[in-house]
Amino acid sequence: MTSSRVWKLGADVDTDALAPGAYMKNGIDVISQHCLEALRPDFASAVRPGDVLVAGPNFGIGSSREQAAGALVHLGVRAVVAPSFSGLFFRNAFNLGLLLLTCPDAEQLHEDEIITLSPAGVHRADGQVLSCQPIPDFLMDMVHAGGLMNVLKQRSQGTRHA
Amino acid sequence: MTSSRVWKLGADVDTDALAPGAYMKNGIDVISQHCLEALRPDFASAVRPGDVLVAGPNFGIGSSREQAAGALVHLGVRAVVAPSFSGLFFRNAFNLGLLLLTCPDAEQLHEDEIITLSPAGVHRADGQVLSCQPIPDFLMDMVHAGGLMNVLKQRSQGTRHA
Repeated sequence: MTSSRVWKLGADVDTDALAPGAYMKNGIDVISQHCLEALRPDFASAVRPGDVLVAGPNFGIGSSREQAAGALVHLGVRAVVAPSFSGLFFRNAFNLGLLLLTCPDAEQLHEDEIITLSPAGVHRADGQVLSCQPIPDFLMDMVHAGGLMNVLKQRSQGTRHA
Repeated sequence: MTSSRVWKLGADVDTDALAPGAYMKNGIDVISQHCLEALRPDFASAVRPGDVLVAGPNFGIGSSREQAAGALVHLGVRAVVAPSFSGLFFRNAFNLGLLLLTCPDAEQLHEDEIITLSPAGVHRADGQVLSCQPIPDFLMDMVHAGGLMNVLKQRSQGTRHA
């Protein structure tokens, strides 16, 4: 398991914070540079591949725009850990290969804390494990493949079987 | 628009309430007869096709079992209206053709109230409309087709185009 650094956010982080409306005519490169700038102006420039977002309830509410998840994938975010997610965001995120962990105790985690993720949950440096709702295999397949389209491509090429 | 009768439930309705673990070895016919019996013993026998469930936040939390949504489809429930849903439940429900409306003010609705649903939201008899998060076309296609598998079948048969 690889360790990850935590970026801590509050509740109700919406899709406009993740993919600001003003930049939606641009490509994902530009949108990503403005990801979360209203909440954390340093985010896009300081986030490192493998970092994890930890947030309060209702992460990803707002619109159905897929770029909200796409910007996090583009920036290399490994996962988002929160007590609850918007249903549309949850669907879009896994389709793009972004792991979301539903963790009732997510808000116990701190900014800059180093954690590791496993199927059992979130492991803290002191040995504590915050349990998360298990993710079904078909969704983990999407995460490992880098998204639904890659799963479908692999299946059509016969490199994996349904 | 067709009118629907409201069944009112509380917050955190979980997948074990929808598809009780004790019956999971049975088929959907049997599971459906026990749907919500822990919360509303009369539900499975009294619900009528076209009725709507209205609930508090976090509807469908718990496990990833698809029968939780499947039982509601089997009983003819038209939609579930709630302020928030479990991400896994949201995904499973649309895959099976069950409409979920994310409605911040859902809890204003009453037991036995007659409502109609439209893309704009939930219409009440007094003319008030409770707005809901818009559902993208690709998910409404699943609802109209009766689930993802039917969408894929229709596409493979050339009766509709992606």
